[in-house]
Amino acid sequence: MCATPEEENWAIASHSVDFYARFAPVADDDRLLAAALWVYWGFAFDDARCDTGPLSTRPAAFNALAGAVQRSLEAPSARPDRDRFIGPLQDIASMFRSFGQPALVRRFAAAHRAWLSGVCWQIGNAAAEHMPELDDFMAMRLLSSGGEPTFALLELATGAEVPAAELAHPAARALTEMAITVAALDNDRHSMHKEVAHGDTNQNIFTVLMRHAALTPQEAVREATALRDRVLLRFLELREHVRARAGAELRRYVDGLSFGIRGNAEWGLRVPRYLSGGLRPADATEDNPLDWAEQPSDTNRSPLPAPSVAWWWDRDLLGA
Amino acid sequence: MCATPEEENWAIASHSVDFYARFAPVADDDRLLAAALWVYWGFAFDDARCDTGPLSTRPAAFNALAGAVQRSLEAPSARPDRDRFIGPLQDIASMFRSFGQPALVRRFAAAHRAWLSGVCWQIGNAAAEHMPELDDFMAMRLLSSGGEPTFALLELATGAEVPAAELAHPAARALTEMAITVAALDNDRHSMHKEVAHGDTNQNIFTVLMRHAALTPQEAVREATALRDRVLLRFLELREHVRARAGAELRRYVDGLSFGIRGNAEWGLRVPRYLSGGLRPADATEDNPLDWAEQPSDTNRSPLPAPSVAWWWDRDLLGA
Repeated sequence: MCATPEEENWAIASHSVDFYARFAPVADDDRLLAAALWVYWGFAFDDARCDTGPLSTRPAAFNALAGAVQRSLEAPSARPDRDRFIGPLQDIASMFRSFGQPALVRRFAAAHRAWLSGVCWQIGNAAAEHMPELDDFMAMRLLSSGGEPTFALLELATGAEVPAAELAHPAARALTEMAITVAALDNDRHSMHKEVAHGDTNQNIFTVLMRHAALTPQEAVREATALRDRVLLRFLELREHVRARAGAELRRYVDGLSFGIRGNAEWGLRVPRYLSGGLRPADATEDNPLDWAEQPSDTNRSPLPAPSVAWWWDRDLLGA
Repeated sequence: MCATPEEENWAIASHSVDFYARFAPVADDDRLLAAALWVYWGFAFDDARCDTGPLSTRPAAFNALAGAVQRSLEAPSARPDRDRFIGPLQDIASMFRSFGQPALVRRFAAAHRAWLSGVCWQIGNAAAEHMPELDDFMAMRLLSSGGEPTFALLELATGAEVPAAELAHPAARALTEMAITVAALDNDRHSMHKEVAHGDTNQNIFTVLMRHAALTPQEAVREATALRDRVLLRFLELREHVRARAGAELRRYVDGLSFGIRGNAEWGLRVPRYLSGGLRPADATEDNPLDWAEQPSDTNRSPLPAPSVAWWWDRDLLGA
């Protein structure tokens, strides 16, 4: 899959098993392996085909590649030689299918398409040299971050299949989207050094706020943290409500969302991918002690000033 | 929603209630209305934003619009004024939600994203002046035809919610994809006149075969019909197998796929949208007698020469 030893080092430096074990600490080894292999795959694909590389500003070419990659995930008969990332993705899809839960494979495929649609959006913006405003950025980042497939792996990793009506309930969807958003905004912080070093197209929460709210970098970091903390506060509030009424599988899923938020932060603050330039996979960052804030930086409980996500604060979600 | 009386005439000329009533003859009026409204919306959006119009060769701009439109379907709080098609789509989504089956709303949203991802692919090809080969075309047309959301409306229209594991079973997926493909290839034939008249970007089964198999128009029509008939033959074979083992909801869904194939053809051969230039909504084509072939034009039961769909012929699908 990797074209060069450097690319392989970058993939290894994502420590994707460490990453996903934090999301799904209850997973069996074979299920955790399958989930972690997709995470490795996703980071490598992201680096080579999305955020950097020749397609990162070519929407026509990327749209076609995204179509073919997505099709290869869904169609076992699709040509594995169309792109070097396709054969390995088909191997991973075949592992997912082997667990005998077709609804979970299908949910993962839908989440995977959602991710690629966000990357198409991002690459289109890059090509047009357009920096999205906060509202569009929040909708785009929810997708382009890869959080949809990452959290869709929860059910595949644990085997706990949530009944369709419970998973699709607006409150469960809001929790999923909020978990993705907190992790994505944290990731914008963790990956800033890597992005600057690698010439990424650079649409992140900080560049968005600097451009459209005319903030300095320091002010943008403060504002982004406040936005992130407000989403997390609402997540915590809604989580208690949903968890109290959930069946066993949905409870496990919601716990996975929580583990994912925490695990993503623990991982992102230590992983060589973001800290060491990716070239020393076995470096010593894993035991670094981490400092956590004792309090949210902003306790404002009103909806974010971004209509595309404001519905997370709908009172209806706390109804029966 | 419509910018001009001509655009409105085109929308009306789609006869979308007639169209969707053929897919879901058992639907209650309020559910049929909601489904048909989306079909009207889809045709109007397609004409104004996808196949023709200023975005039809601008993938960066279309990717962003597709992202915002999709978000507005999922987020009731999203800004309705971002594009004139967004507010009406939100009204339709709200009708869907009112039926109280969140899993169906979620399935529809995933299908809607699949459609838009296919349009992104098509618009990217148009921008790059790239005519896809048969394999990519089959994968792209499966999405860009709009068949995914159209058939996802079946459950919303009938209220018969198929258990997730049954709907996601590979055999049920293959049936869905084959129904979409037969309808899409039929639609390529029905809409040829309209597409030529309106300067569409013109990626259809005929142009694909003429370009890459070096066929004359007459040969391309014959070959496209043969491909279409082979898919329908496999659909009929697999349908009997699935139907015999299906629960009541899946049986109703599979019947809807069959009604859709037939209804799409009856509608497409008579609808003013394709026959009269769209400007005479009440013309007399609805009673035109139709000629049907008595036999398939090709009875070859081997997989199509397109790896992205060849798995529809997997023997496993006829297993338990």
